[in-house]
Amino acid sequence: MSIHSTQTSIDAPLYEQVANRICYLIKQGTLRPGEKVPSIRSLSKQLQVSINTVKEAYSQLEDRQFIEARPQSGYYVRAQQLNLPSEPIVDRPALDRPAAVTINNVYGLVMRDLLNPNLLQLGIANPNAELLPTTKLNRMLARAARLHPLQAVSYELPPGNLRLRQQIAQRTLESSCALSPDEIVITSGCVEAVSLALRALCKPGDTVAIETPFYFNFIQLIAELGLKALEIPASPRGGISLEALDYALTSNQGDVKACLVIPNFNNPLGSLMADEDKQKLVALLTKHQVPLIEDDIYGDLPLSGKRPSVAKSFDTSGNVLLCSSFSKTLAPGYRVGWIAAGRYQERIEHGKMISGVATASPTQLAIGEFLATGGYEHHLRTLCRHYARMVPLMADAISRHFPAGTRVSRPQGGFLLWVEMPHQINALRLYEAARTCGISIAPGHLFSLEGKFSNCIRLNAACWNSCVEAAIITLGRLAGEQLEN
Amino acid sequence: MSIHSTQTSIDAPLYEQVANRICYLIKQGTLRPGEKVPSIRSLSKQLQVSINTVKEAYSQLEDRQFIEARPQSGYYVRAQQLNLPSEPIVDRPALDRPAAVTINNVYGLVMRDLLNPNLLQLGIANPNAELLPTTKLNRMLARAARLHPLQAVSYELPPGNLRLRQQIAQRTLESSCALSPDEIVITSGCVEAVSLALRALCKPGDTVAIETPFYFNFIQLIAELGLKALEIPASPRGGISLEALDYALTSNQGDVKACLVIPNFNNPLGSLMADEDKQKLVALLTKHQVPLIEDDIYGDLPLSGKRPSVAKSFDTSGNVLLCSSFSKTLAPGYRVGWIAAGRYQERIEHGKMISGVATASPTQLAIGEFLATGGYEHHLRTLCRHYARMVPLMADAISRHFPAGTRVSRPQGGFLLWVEMPHQINALRLYEAARTCGISIAPGHLFSLEGKFSNCIRLNAACWNSCVEAAIITLGRLAGEQLEN
Repeated sequence: MSIHSTQTSIDAPLYEQVANRICYLIKQGTLRPGEKVPSIRSLSKQLQVSINTVKEAYSQLEDRQFIEARPQSGYYVRAQQLNLPSEPIVDRPALDRPAAVTINNVYGLVMRDLLNPNLLQLGIANPNAELLPTTKLNRMLARAARLHPLQAVSYELPPGNLRLRQQIAQRTLESSCALSPDEIVITSGCVEAVSLALRALCKPGDTVAIETPFYFNFIQLIAELGLKALEIPASPRGGISLEALDYALTSNQGDVKACLVIPNFNNPLGSLMADEDKQKLVALLTKHQVPLIEDDIYGDLPLSGKRPSVAKSFDTSGNVLLCSSFSKTLAPGYRVGWIAAGRYQERIEHGKMISGVATASPTQLAIGEFLATGGYEHHLRTLCRHYARMVPLMADAISRHFPAGTRVSRPQGGFLLWVEMPHQINALRLYEAARTCGISIAPGHLFSLEGKFSNCIRLNAACWNSCVEAAIITLGRLAGEQLEN
Repeated sequence: MSIHSTQTSIDAPLYEQVANRICYLIKQGTLRPGEKVPSIRSLSKQLQVSINTVKEAYSQLEDRQFIEARPQSGYYVRAQQLNLPSEPIVDRPALDRPAAVTINNVYGLVMRDLLNPNLLQLGIANPNAELLPTTKLNRMLARAARLHPLQAVSYELPPGNLRLRQQIAQRTLESSCALSPDEIVITSGCVEAVSLALRALCKPGDTVAIETPFYFNFIQLIAELGLKALEIPASPRGGISLEALDYALTSNQGDVKACLVIPNFNNPLGSLMADEDKQKLVALLTKHQVPLIEDDIYGDLPLSGKRPSVAKSFDTSGNVLLCSSFSKTLAPGYRVGWIAAGRYQERIEHGKMISGVATASPTQLAIGEFLATGGYEHHLRTLCRHYARMVPLMADAISRHFPAGTRVSRPQGGFLLWVEMPHQINALRLYEAARTCGISIAPGHLFSLEGKFSNCIRLNAACWNSCVEAAIITLGRLAGEQLEN
């Protein structure tokens, strides 16, 4: 292999020439997604360039998302290099008039589907159950109940089990945030954490700034609490628009009592805010005296590279309430989540106590044990590797089977895909047609207040198998039929 | 033993003469609390009266709470025949002006105590952990996780685990209420059930009618939700005053959006509403179109006789939301409760979904298994027998060690005692003094909105041992010191 066999200008720096050479091999199909690229040492020998030059080249290729490093294993071609459709262009809503959320029937329909075992569930954000450490975790649950019988049946009153809080606190180092166990309150999943935060910060009539499109359960929650939602546009790549947020906070001076954001691998877009933007977000909200509720439930699931920082890591005044859980990585049914609520901690503990007393004890003990001795980091690496393979496969299938003009998000973490179909297609009609074919999807209507995103759907890409592939083909066909009529 | 050796009038019916004879033996101390009274057959022989006459006499003595039947064992002298002080006279508040609840610091203080392992916890309504079937239950938890690994880690979405709902539905026959599994939604304990009910029925500014004194967590919850509480007087024997409630509902026409009552073994009074009154309560609220939230968490714990009916059993229009849990009888830390919400079921399921998604799965599986195969009824009988012994022992100790004029409730179920001290005594001062002696109690201030019951305390009588006895002596001394100053 000669470095000069590519079209790279001879004037480009050497590392760029090397990078472009590898890039060419990938595009050409010589190096296929998931395959290992030559080791740094062997490429350095082959091309007769220095080790540092190859390192620099690979680092650039990583940045450009062509390859990814796997610990103790080397570099691999990223699966994203499939023939993907364009990314969605998210519509921009009016910023100066918060809309009252109206509970719509769509949510009820989709939720009812969840209990139907005959439907293929592509509409809910369930993790792939086969990838969860079920046996190990259940064994730890059994063991905890045997070793700590009295603790297992007794209340773990707020803030919750100490050992679990210690483990969670240690793990926050990974997200550049060194919390102490005393700053953490255990909750029944992340949704309860966010629910407690909203109830601690807002009273009915208040406004909450959110991203759009946004996780539908939170939109329903905001409605149920009698709050108004102010939708701030978000990009599928970088997350919430800070300029728009600044403008909106200024326009709605004093009305906005909280800002609820998913900076890492947003649901539904999969977007990732840059660290710099997280820092700006925290500063902006602190300036406006608006607390930030940060949902980091997907933070442990990057599809490449390392775990991102949390916005909370830039918080110096206790203004950020960081919420997360183990529902996407270990066991949704264990209902173990947590919140680090900064200066609102006491209110959160009070709210937890009076609205449910405590989180179940046995599952707290089991998750605490898993974090301490179960190899959580190793498990995460496996999980992320699988999702990094599956998510692009579904995106690729969508690009092949959906009508021309369909756009798909390129999530940087998590396992959700946001699909924007041509404007003539109605996602609710697609939802209904898909249901008769045994497939449940989440129509875009759910992700905003007033039927925006009516041409969008959210799909769960956590599982990839022949059934799911067939479902994508069916969905594509059904979407296409709408264009014909 | 001659039937004529008592002071009973010779004109009284024969069965009454027999009853009074036994009564005399008890008062005299010949038959002591906990001792077996002669069998029906042997007494009939001894006194030369018919079997039916003795049966009638024992039935009367049971009604008068002198003796109690134990299944397959005969009749026993009830422990209540100790030297008890008078029952409390609950003050009557103004009925026409609902007061806005102000969150007070007392609650925070008492809750903080709960986490202090150096305090003897007489202030919280924890069951006696030694009487819980800890080993069996934890074994079932381990087994459920082993046999149903995937179910244990997956969401049990609302309405919750089917087998558990079937078991709960079957058990509602005991409380004269034949619910179907479909009418039940599993919650994270009874407090969450009540919290969901209040949120489904009321919006901020609405009024909720409650009993007074009333469980402090619910008062805090009402405050947190921005609701007003309308306190209806309750008697330590018969529960909420229906006349007062009728008057209050009429005065506050349309403002009262829910009525929250604990008809069976109220917390803190231990009162039991008669079936007739439950029926009237349901009819009254239906007439006023006010839904009834019924908390039946202590219903399985009668101190004598059979399990009482629930008000829900008189509900024909779906206007009653029955809430309960296994926190007082099996495992508080498992966080498994339920609600049968009548015509509000859909709203409750929606509320559960958006504020916490689901209740933990493994503990639902374990409680379902325990109800099906663990001998719950047998366990309840043992539990009730212990509480029936312990509660009067603490009441007796209070009567001996507290200042003259102290009154104590005679709970008919559960394990809580309401202690009304002379008016000069301040329960908050007593709380503080007791805390320095290593004892935590619940001051009466917590049980109403504006410092009523300032001379009252609630004590947990679920454990009786030498430590608790010493604590009662200390509390009595500290209360007495307030009178001296």
